[in-house]
Amino acid sequence: MIEAPYIGSLKAGPLGTIADVAGVTVGHCTLDQRAVQTGVTVIRPHQGDVYRSKVPAAASVINGFGKSIGLVQVDELGVLETPIALTNTFGVGTVANAQIRHAIEANSSIGREWPTVNPLVFECNDGYLNDIQALAVQEAHFVRALQACGEEFERGSVGAGRGMSCFELKGGIGSASRVSDVAGRSFTTGALVLANFGRLSMLTLGGVALGRTLSAAEGHKAEKGSIIMIIATDAPLDARQLRRLSMRATAGLARTGSVYGHGSGDLSLAFTTAYTVPHLDDFIEVPALVSDSRLDPLFQAAADSVEQAIVDALFSAVSVTGRDGHRRLSIKDITTS
Amino acid sequence: MIEAPYIGSLKAGPLGTIADVAGVTVGHCTLDQRAVQTGVTVIRPHQGDVYRSKVPAAASVINGFGKSIGLVQVDELGVLETPIALTNTFGVGTVANAQIRHAIEANSSIGREWPTVNPLVFECNDGYLNDIQALAVQEAHFVRALQACGEEFERGSVGAGRGMSCFELKGGIGSASRVSDVAGRSFTTGALVLANFGRLSMLTLGGVALGRTLSAAEGHKAEKGSIIMIIATDAPLDARQLRRLSMRATAGLARTGSVYGHGSGDLSLAFTTAYTVPHLDDFIEVPALVSDSRLDPLFQAAADSVEQAIVDALFSAVSVTGRDGHRRLSIKDITTS
Amino acid sequence: MIEAPYIGSLKAGPLGTIADVAGVTVGHCTLDQRAVQTGVTVIRPHQGDVYRSKVPAAASVINGFGKSIGLVQVDELGVLETPIALTNTFGVGTVANAQIRHAIEANSSIGREWPTVNPLVFECNDGYLNDIQALAVQEAHFVRALQACGEEFERGSVGAGRGMSCFELKGGIGSASRVSDVAGRSFTTGALVLANFGRLSMLTLGGVALGRTLSAAEGHKAEKGSIIMIIATDAPLDARQLRRLSMRATAGLARTGSVYGHGSGDLSLAFTTAYTVPHLDDFIEVPALVSDSRLDPLFQAAADSVEQAIVDALFSAVSVTGRDGHRRLSIKDITTS
Amino acid sequence: MIEAPYIGSLKAGPLGTIADVAGVTVGHCTLDQRAVQTGVTVIRPHQGDVYRSKVPAAASVINGFGKSIGLVQVDELGVLETPIALTNTFGVGTVANAQIRHAIEANSSIGREWPTVNPLVFECNDGYLNDIQALAVQEAHFVRALQACGEEFERGSVGAGRGMSCFELKGGIGSASRVSDVAGRSFTTGALVLANFGRLSMLTLGGVALGRTLSAAEGHKAEKGSIIMIIATDAPLDARQLRRLSMRATAGLARTGSVYGHGSGDLSLAFTTAYTVPHLDDFIEVPALVSDSRLDPLFQAAADSVEQAIVDALFSAVSVTGRDGHRRLSIKDITTS
Repeated sequence: MIEAPYIGSLKAGPLGTIADVAGVTVGHCTLDQRAVQTGVTVIRPHQGDVYRSKVPAAASVINGFGKSIGLVQVDELGVLETPIALTNTFGVGTVANAQIRHAIEANSSIGREWPTVNPLVFECNDGYLNDIQALAVQEAHFVRALQACGEEFERGSVGAGRGMSCFELKGGIGSASRVSDVAGRSFTTGALVLANFGRLSMLTLGGVALGRTLSAAEGHKAEKGSIIMIIATDAPLDARQLRRLSMRATAGLARTGSVYGHGSGDLSLAFTTAYTVPHLDDFIEVPALVSDSRLDPLFQAAADSVEQAIVDALFSAVSVTGRDGHRRLSIKDITTS
Repeated sequence: MIEAPYIGSLKAGPLGTIADVAGVTVGHCTLDQRAVQTGVTVIRPHQGDVYRSKVPAAASVINGFGKSIGLVQVDELGVLETPIALTNTFGVGTVANAQIRHAIEANSSIGREWPTVNPLVFECNDGYLNDIQALAVQEAHFVRALQACGEEFERGSVGAGRGMSCFELKGGIGSASRVSDVAGRSFTTGALVLANFGRLSMLTLGGVALGRTLSAAEGHKAEKGSIIMIIATDAPLDARQLRRLSMRATAGLARTGSVYGHGSGDLSLAFTTAYTVPHLDDFIEVPALVSDSRLDPLFQAAADSVEQAIVDALFSAVSVTGRDGHRRLSIKDITTS
Repeated sequence: MIEAPYIGSLKAGPLGTIADVAGVTVGHCTLDQRAVQTGVTVIRPHQGDVYRSKVPAAASVINGFGKSIGLVQVDELGVLETPIALTNTFGVGTVANAQIRHAIEANSSIGREWPTVNPLVFECNDGYLNDIQALAVQEAHFVRALQACGEEFERGSVGAGRGMSCFELKGGIGSASRVSDVAGRSFTTGALVLANFGRLSMLTLGGVALGRTLSAAEGHKAEKGSIIMIIATDAPLDARQLRRLSMRATAGLARTGSVYGHGSGDLSLAFTTAYTVPHLDDFIEVPALVSDSRLDPLFQAAADSVEQAIVDALFSAVSVTGRDGHRRLSIKDITTS
Repeated sequence: MIEAPYIGSLKAGPLGTIADVAGVTVGHCTLDQRAVQTGVTVIRPHQGDVYRSKVPAAASVINGFGKSIGLVQVDELGVLETPIALTNTFGVGTVANAQIRHAIEANSSIGREWPTVNPLVFECNDGYLNDIQALAVQEAHFVRALQACGEEFERGSVGAGRGMSCFELKGGIGSASRVSDVAGRSFTTGALVLANFGRLSMLTLGGVALGRTLSAAEGHKAEKGSIIMIIATDAPLDARQLRRLSMRATAGLARTGSVYGHGSGDLSLAFTTAYTVPHLDDFIEVPALVSDSRLDPLFQAAADSVEQAIVDALFSAVSVTGRDGHRRLSIKDITTS
């Protein structure tokens, strides 16, 4: 039986998840009914109202074969103004609607005296296990995932990860964290991934090209997957620096064997909890930011957290049978057999 | 009474709209019930199935204060695979769902044997006239707009333009076309805009800063608008060149007085009808492309078409009264009084 | 005789140039010997050492037909670390060398204990008047321009502007400033352009399409020009916001008639003097930043300054005769005859 | 003694270098005199005049801490118009001048009847071994490297690689190739890297985290390195697709242990030899392009070639002593002791 390797030499936080970044919570709503194997996962960057206390953020599009909504405005303004939602590709519209309705409920001036709200929803295609044509995700599922948010949360075949495949094994939600020192201060960086990419032959665990052994003679199959990589940090960074941080997710991803296949929508987004941007202020107070020349320990933490989170997704997942008898085995199941 | 100026020295096509680009059709579904003043507009780039015969395209984000969906993949792959839909900001999710369902109906392998589909939906905020919080746009409205597509189509206070404001006047849908010669061949370039930007004091018509006269003493009001600029051409260009073409929309926009205000999501997208990209082919045949060094006449046509389309939106619009008694006057109404 | 129009409704600063932004100075070295009609212009963002006190900055590439050096790093790190130099296209390498040598003289650790330095040099092609193949610009010319920097500086056919053409007239260096209020505070924004773009038929002055009158019957000529637009502001902005500001330069440019022709390398860069980024600090103090929702008055100032600076370049320039008897008339000379 | 691992499962071409892509040649000029340990490397994409027969190309900036010249125009126009030159950071200006002079010699209309030329020069900082402040690279060194271009070329401590360090070992020039099948056709993809990045503790060879063993107790040292990754392919791709290909270089880089450190300017550029873009044609003939949905084998080849090329740089390099007694050992020398 294969053990999950520990990635790199930095230490993890106490929970070993993105929730080690203080204030960050995660919740799921899982749909598990025969051919419907899908769900919604929500990441709350803080416990307040994200519209009124916006969160500095930036994204990198590694391979833009993806249907997420919200990135155009994040790129321009450098902030989140809703929680981050993850779901399947055809759930994006409905979850965006749910985000909008939730924001309006909390702030009745949205779209009237105030501007509209930018719902942020990421997706992967879980169509192998899930009957994605059913458009089964409803607005209530977002609400349930939002309400379920907490520091403790399940990983693996849950929430948006329910129907996801990774390296032709069962994938889904994974998370990890790393603590690193920057000029005498200690910062925590965490990752949460929705892992749904890769062919078995590519699988590399802690540097070991395990997939080549497991996959035997295999013809070339195209990737239809994707991975969404969310990075949280408590280090004070601005949006430009967060974009730099988000780019380092790709290093962690590559070390698992991915070459960012054509059909894999590989996106990462990084946000900081070090400060927020008030909705109505004329001038925005910003704490002293980490100098770019001191970012390397954070870059390492981001890359290692993402790689560890992918490992976590694989080892947290349970085997799932979905539409048309399609079945994905957990890595734990294949390797014990 | 002010006359609509004719922009530039290039000639328009016979219809004077984006439908002068052969194969392009436009349809609307207009919602006009008291506080609900909104709708959906659809542009079909050709009469076939856009998923199976994808359309080379590229976009420029001038000011990303916008909530459109679909641009990440257009940027990566350089093609459209659905018609282009326009609606209000909070209609994006629902219209995306409608696009998905429509694509699945036509192609039952989507999300199963084939990859998923990338719904392309642009938006502006019509919240001044329209009760945007009602989320009144339904999937059926997309279908109706799609079915209504034709070479002849209304402009002004129709479709997605129903509730839009422009320079504090009634805005909405406008369209125009220009014919230009490239190395002995004649190409048609057309624009369709969803015009919802600008303060009255900025309004410039055919170079005349009319707004300064009309707006009298006015305090600074923030723009909450946006403009979506769609450019079609029958010139053979690839996605990189179409991105260059889409950027020239901004010149036309600027000449009407806009400085791309913070709150105005200003996006443009250009596509060509000169060839399509078959969904399943291994190799893609491409016609001889216009040399970059010969693009200037197309750039001029794009800028002039966009400026003329904005003028057209203003002069085609009728006055509309919407939520809470809010009213926008047509430019024809204010200037005759 | 045509008068230079005053652009927009904002007030200019006392000098009416980029030097109204406190601390900014400009210097030229002009080469004017028969076929050699070229030079170097330097903008110092502050009076200190720019390598040790880096300057927040960001650029927009409107049309990347250009050969500037330094923008890759500005885009990544969001700071300048040398003065800004302007010269002809084939002078970039030599001026970059001069920037490097100057930085090393001031900081002998560069390229040893410290990283290297990123020389920033912009260019336009003055090959119509200047024998650009002569590569006449020498490192000493950069030094002379640097030493000449002051608040008072000439515009028109001087420095890097010596050989430049604009709308087939004599172009060159132009500058302007505007003062705008943001939430009760007053900020100064200034522009300096190296204007070398446009065909006469396009020329639009203060909204008047003058060029159509002046250019009579004319075949299509390709633009081989370019414009570099440098914007300085004393408003506290970060690099992301400065990129937004730099994009508004394009609005000012468009209003003069440009559609960003294929062969015109149109670039803008914006920097702030509100704070600097110390070279060796671990954490970077940042002042309270202008909220994005309050940026419109600065956007207007940037667009108006750029348009006014282009007007200034045309009206400051004197007629010049260069290589092979090529001659460009000043707009003042053609319009008086 | 460590053996160089063979990366991945695709086969190499006969030469095992970028020259397996037919028509591509490489030449060096090496400066090796006490404190001067540097040089120039040139890659010719074909044997003709690159200005008149331009080469489709695109780049990805992974970490823009770099001072290369030429990328702005490559990004806009999607072509190279000079050979690719590599040198040290402070040699860029001089090599750009040499590229310009070389292009003018071959095409006397450049900068007169024709537009100017866009010199493409990449760099890394070899300041640990090389006295980079000496600005020792001269234009003649570029010419010598150009004239030396051939299918057979040295790797390791030669040309631009002479003074480069990689994982605190001797780095420099490395190259590799891979052959992959796309829909029944066989294409060759090759990489050439200028490897100058990484701390020893990161070094990962063929998945083995060797560096952790070799580096013992080590404090954190900042990267001051960089890597330039050039990918050539004979597959017919357009510039948009070549940008996608160039992005996959980062996967190969990450697998060697890099997280794209702050101070490491990590850039990749991909070009195709499948067709050229004639300088003066009105319309550009393009061969049938590989469908994006068939790109995965090329992505794999790009990632594997780059990783193999980095391995090659390490194993081809000989130990070098440079300025102030600084010395970098070849990996072969450390692992045999």
